[in-house]
Amino acid sequence: MKRILGIDPGLLHTGWSIIDCAGSTRTYVASGVILPPTNIPLSERLAFIFNHVNDLCKKFNPTECSIEVIFVNKNGKTTLLLGHARAAAITAVAVEKIPVFEYEPNKVKKALTGIGHADKDQIYKMLTILLPAAHPKTPDESDAIAIALTHANTSRF
Amino acid sequence: MKRILGIDPGLLHTGWSIIDCAGSTRTYVASGVILPPTNIPLSERLAFIFNHVNDLCKKFNPTECSIEVIFVNKNGKTTLLLGHARAAAITAVAVEKIPVFEYEPNKVKKALTGIGHADKDQIYKMLTILLPAAHPKTPDESDAIAIALTHANTSRF
Repeated sequence: MKRILGIDPGLLHTGWSIIDCAGSTRTYVASGVILPPTNIPLSERLAFIFNHVNDLCKKFNPTECSIEVIFVNKNGKTTLLLGHARAAAITAVAVEKIPVFEYEPNKVKKALTGIGHADKDQIYKMLTILLPAAHPKTPDESDAIAIALTHANTSRF
Repeated sequence: MKRILGIDPGLLHTGWSIIDCAGSTRTYVASGVILPPTNIPLSERLAFIFNHVNDLCKKFNPTECSIEVIFVNKNGKTTLLLGHARAAAITAVAVEKIPVFEYEPNKVKKALTGIGHADKDQIYKMLTILLPAAHPKTPDESDAIAIALTHANTSRF
């Protein structure tokens, strides 16, 4: 049995999910969103994300972590800040010696729906079919479940 | 008395320095370079940087940390990786509740030499005048001392 921590990082909202995989069975365990206060400096927001993700590792004992690759887009400054949030989350997992796997966004879409350019609605529908127990309340939570499922369905156990 | 941790982050080399400030006196305490193994995944390199910077905080008990602001340049991918290393270092300090101050590169140059576009040689010469006990062996170590001194000479104690 593998337990996967999926993370959809962001300075404003970091989605997370835990799913269990045994053979071809996927079981929803938990998911949520980390919301750092917005009125504190960048360094404290990174520490907030780190502490919460690290707590999730200690509480749920995931065996692997799955996270999306990010690319620099038109707004380089925003991507750089997102990269900081992503690094805080990755570091919180890696200090617990949990391996981190990275997937490109279109791989996530393709792994779940068969379509590399699937929209959020198509992904959400597929999630509810694959994991009926999951009821993600926000896009970040939904994306975090999607990235965990992608790793479950991509990696060779 | 304030004790400043200066950090010049990088995935290959992260320079660090510790200097003490009392009134107008600056005292060199220590400096060095963190060298994560290059043959391990990004996540493990971030954990390596985090653990080493966090150890420095516990060993030297700095009261403040100073680090350079980075900008997305022509090579967005490289900047994004640098941002990850920077975030791992910042997070390692912030989880210890040590405040982190950020300075733009030209502010560092100007604070030390009076010239916003000073070159590395000019900065190195100024460092050896201001802190005769410092003998930085690499540019990363030298830059880490420069960023700590910048904070010492800029902030109003």
